[in-house]
Amino acid sequence: MKNRLTDFRRFQYTLHEIIFEADTLAGKWFDVILILSIVSSVVVVMLDSVSAFKTHYGFYLYEVEWGFTLLFTVEYILRLICVKKPLRYATSFLGLVDLLAILPTYMSLFVPGSQYLIVIRVFRVLRVFRVFKLASYIGEASILIRALRASRRKIIVFMMTLLTLVIIFGSLMYLIEGEDNGFTSIPRSVYWAIVTMTTVGYGDISPKTNPGQALASLIMILGYAILAVPTGIITAELSLATQKKVSTQACPECMAHGHGTDAVFCKYCSARLNPDSHS
Amino acid sequence: MKNRLTDFRRFQYTLHEIIFEADTLAGKWFDVILILSIVSSVVVVMLDSVSAFKTHYGFYLYEVEWGFTLLFTVEYILRLICVKKPLRYATSFLGLVDLLAILPTYMSLFVPGSQYLIVIRVFRVLRVFRVFKLASYIGEASILIRALRASRRKIIVFMMTLLTLVIIFGSLMYLIEGEDNGFTSIPRSVYWAIVTMTTVGYGDISPKTNPGQALASLIMILGYAILAVPTGIITAELSLATQKKVSTQACPECMAHGHGTDAVFCKYCSARLNPDSHS
Amino acid sequence: MKNRLTDFRRFQYTLHEIIFEADTLAGKWFDVILILSIVSSVVVVMLDSVSAFKTHYGFYLYEVEWGFTLLFTVEYILRLICVKKPLRYATSFLGLVDLLAILPTYMSLFVPGSQYLIVIRVFRVLRVFRVFKLASYIGEASILIRALRASRRKIIVFMMTLLTLVIIFGSLMYLIEGEDNGFTSIPRSVYWAIVTMTTVGYGDISPKTNPGQALASLIMILGYAILAVPTGIITAELSLATQKKVSTQACPECMAHGHGTDAVFCKYCSARLNPDSHS
Amino acid sequence: MKNRLTDFRRFQYTLHEIIFEADTLAGKWFDVILILSIVSSVVVVMLDSVSAFKTHYGFYLYEVEWGFTLLFTVEYILRLICVKKPLRYATSFLGLVDLLAILPTYMSLFVPGSQYLIVIRVFRVLRVFRVFKLASYIGEASILIRALRASRRKIIVFMMTLLTLVIIFGSLMYLIEGEDNGFTSIPRSVYWAIVTMTTVGYGDISPKTNPGQALASLIMILGYAILAVPTGIITAELSLATQKKVSTQACPECMAHGHGTDAVFCKYCSARLNPDSHS
Repeated sequence: MKNRLTDFRRFQYTLHEIIFEADTLAGKWFDVILILSIVSSVVVVMLDSVSAFKTHYGFYLYEVEWGFTLLFTVEYILRLICVKKPLRYATSFLGLVDLLAILPTYMSLFVPGSQYLIVIRVFRVLRVFRVFKLASYIGEASILIRALRASRRKIIVFMMTLLTLVIIFGSLMYLIEGEDNGFTSIPRSVYWAIVTMTTVGYGDISPKTNPGQALASLIMILGYAILAVPTGIITAELSLATQKKVSTQACPECMAHGHGTDAVFCKYCSARLNPDSHS
Repeated sequence: MKNRLTDFRRFQYTLHEIIFEADTLAGKWFDVILILSIVSSVVVVMLDSVSAFKTHYGFYLYEVEWGFTLLFTVEYILRLICVKKPLRYATSFLGLVDLLAILPTYMSLFVPGSQYLIVIRVFRVLRVFRVFKLASYIGEASILIRALRASRRKIIVFMMTLLTLVIIFGSLMYLIEGEDNGFTSIPRSVYWAIVTMTTVGYGDISPKTNPGQALASLIMILGYAILAVPTGIITAELSLATQKKVSTQACPECMAHGHGTDAVFCKYCSARLNPDSHS
Repeated sequence: MKNRLTDFRRFQYTLHEIIFEADTLAGKWFDVILILSIVSSVVVVMLDSVSAFKTHYGFYLYEVEWGFTLLFTVEYILRLICVKKPLRYATSFLGLVDLLAILPTYMSLFVPGSQYLIVIRVFRVLRVFRVFKLASYIGEASILIRALRASRRKIIVFMMTLLTLVIIFGSLMYLIEGEDNGFTSIPRSVYWAIVTMTTVGYGDISPKTNPGQALASLIMILGYAILAVPTGIITAELSLATQKKVSTQACPECMAHGHGTDAVFCKYCSARLNPDSHS
Repeated sequence: MKNRLTDFRRFQYTLHEIIFEADTLAGKWFDVILILSIVSSVVVVMLDSVSAFKTHYGFYLYEVEWGFTLLFTVEYILRLICVKKPLRYATSFLGLVDLLAILPTYMSLFVPGSQYLIVIRVFRVLRVFRVFKLASYIGEASILIRALRASRRKIIVFMMTLLTLVIIFGSLMYLIEGEDNGFTSIPRSVYWAIVTMTTVGYGDISPKTNPGQALASLIMILGYAILAVPTGIITAELSLATQKKVSTQACPECMAHGHGTDAVFCKYCSARLNPDSHS
């Protein structure tokens, strides 16, 4: 009995290595095939929404969709088996996405039309990033994420300012242009202000009166200068992250880290740094 | 008598602590509730402008609006009481906004329709920034403000150039395209030039003739290169403000610069750094 | 006779000081009034093109226009008198602009309608920049100009790449979309490609077919990544120009310039730099 | 016989010098004339697509097109002759472009209408960049290319994120807005998401419902913050490439770093810098 349990443990461990890790050859292949399946199934979902395609190949798309759903169902069950705490995985973000990526197809058997909820499956594409562990791309991704995290607070302050400005400018445009020129309500005017300030500029709503166009001009110029700020914030942090080639060597005396690559002596205890441990 | 005055002084001081400062627990709670009230009242004003909402819930919105107005009136009077120089507060920018945020509702009793001026209340959202004192966000905000202030002159020079260019290009387009293609006057053509140069591009006015489209192409490409300038200005200042964490102290032995602010010993010659020369 | 000539020379010199320089009080006032006149006359020209304004105030605008034209004529003659080489001034860029800014009004006496050429006067707004000599804005302007000049070649290389890309993408879209979807010719398709790549996006021409929209998506994403380049170029140069706080001190031995602000010894001849001459 | 072969070798070498190199005077002239011919032929192809031009000057354009085609045919044959491995040139990218740039004109003799494929000729414009060898522009181009190559991986990671986001947001908008508001399929909604996120904003498809406009506002603001990333990536790399003019040598006396590449003596302790330690 104990032996059988050990066998299961070993099977569970091997499965976990293949499904959740990407260090072994089998694990890498599993990841690559999984990503290709996810991308293919997303393409199928996208094509299924094109009416011309659906009319001609609807039946085949339907079959392929079921094929992928069964495949992902098997994968979901295997994931539940091989983790030590199945409930923890099932309630995690990726676990919920994995479940939601297969449910709508089953639901469509009882509730017609619900198969369109399958688009939730596109969230599984996020797994692509985990596969980057395969390559050295993860390093670059982490630099980007670190830079974005470091500028988190500046971006929140900036977003608050932007939100205040679009509400104020949207309200002013609502008063100036009025409902006849497409600015039918303050929320819609705020939507227009966001479309203008982010320089998207659909043109579905645009100022018609002279004072409205004058204010819009002001908003655009101000908006552009203001929107240079997030670029500045992220660039400044990325420059730091790119330049900050901090040496990985530790001081042989006090074990302190974080010395510059040009440091000869430890800046905390003055001991000579070991040049051999340079990375 | 003197005792009563002292009581009032103490009451005034406590009130000031709560309303104007955010250091005490009561002050923090007051700020949080105030911000929530302001945001709620702005949402009510915004919903009131949506005709579908107004038809169904107009009466409730009316009541809620009056509730917020009375609340803000009480707050305004308390603010007048607790400051030492009430007139100075009443004539300050925030004081005027506080007054203008309650007046339109009272005015609407005598002048129908004037309650729409209540959108001025959205300016009170600016108070949100003061609440940042609660968190360490104020530091990030001040870095942004310092960077913007440092690049003030460069941005003014840039704005003057931009204004000259849009007037010149707008006038040229007015001559080339003429009134039949939507360029009905020079101011409107300048508005088009601003829409184009800031890359908003509504499309409500767009060149129709061949020379017009050729000039527009030139304006777009030139415009893009020129609009890279404010981004460059703000990024350069933000980079300086972000990097400026390097100590300005020099090593007393080898005079080397560029030590981190946390350095105790020179990283080049191991001499002890003089903490007095810290800047 | 000689005395009279000297008198004229002195008058000429004083006039030159007032009109061309901004060091004296009279010169500063002349510049400020001139700028106000130019701005006012440009506003009058702009208002004159608005049909509603012209109908009501056309006669007054006409009179004001003549007033400004006479004023600028007097100024032009005075400029010719006070410079030593009148022909050189008259054939310079600013001299030609000064002449072209007054000619159209006189021409309109003989050729009706030619007064619209007066928009050339807006070029005189460029003089605004000379007045910056009044303030310290000239320093900031020169940093911007230096940064733009330093990145001149990179920008030309970039512009050539952009031009090649818009021609190639424009031609491809002409073949894909065809004349029925608004892509009536290759030049017009190239115009569309420029509108798209600079993220202006009027929407007057937009892809209708599936392969067209796919290619357009590719162009947009590629375009955005490519258009990050001019921003990067200008930012990098501006960062250098902002950080490069080069000391203005010269070496007392070899007279070499360009030492860093942290330099103690001349980097060319090892002589000790004079700290008193620090700027 | 051997002499004749040597003659051919010499002729081949001289031809190669002229056609493929730009070091000699003849080579420079050949390149300049070639570029002018390519640009002219591209202009002719572009004008030929304008119906008004074709009606009037169609015959002349036809003749000029044949002239350029014969010229480029002679050039192609000469290129084949003067290279040592003709097959290698013929199968290279530029060799194929050279062939494809002349084929369509000949094809149009048998298959009417195929002369429009001649637009492939615009790819020859890429040769313009080789001529930059003439000037020092190649250095600037290589800085740009190096910066782009260094940020290659970051840009790929960014593009993957962008692609995931536009698929998710496009699918959501398809569900929210539906086919009645122009979001006829998921691929078309993804196209809309790309148009919005890159701030192009044609306005051919735009959200009509309230939740749709709310989500679009979110996408725009998020999109702007995200699109600041490629600018940041390229700017950070360009800053590094531009700044990297600081010598990596250390002073042999005080070990100080950060000397300019033109420094002869240490700016901190006046010791002579060791030119051998230059990197």
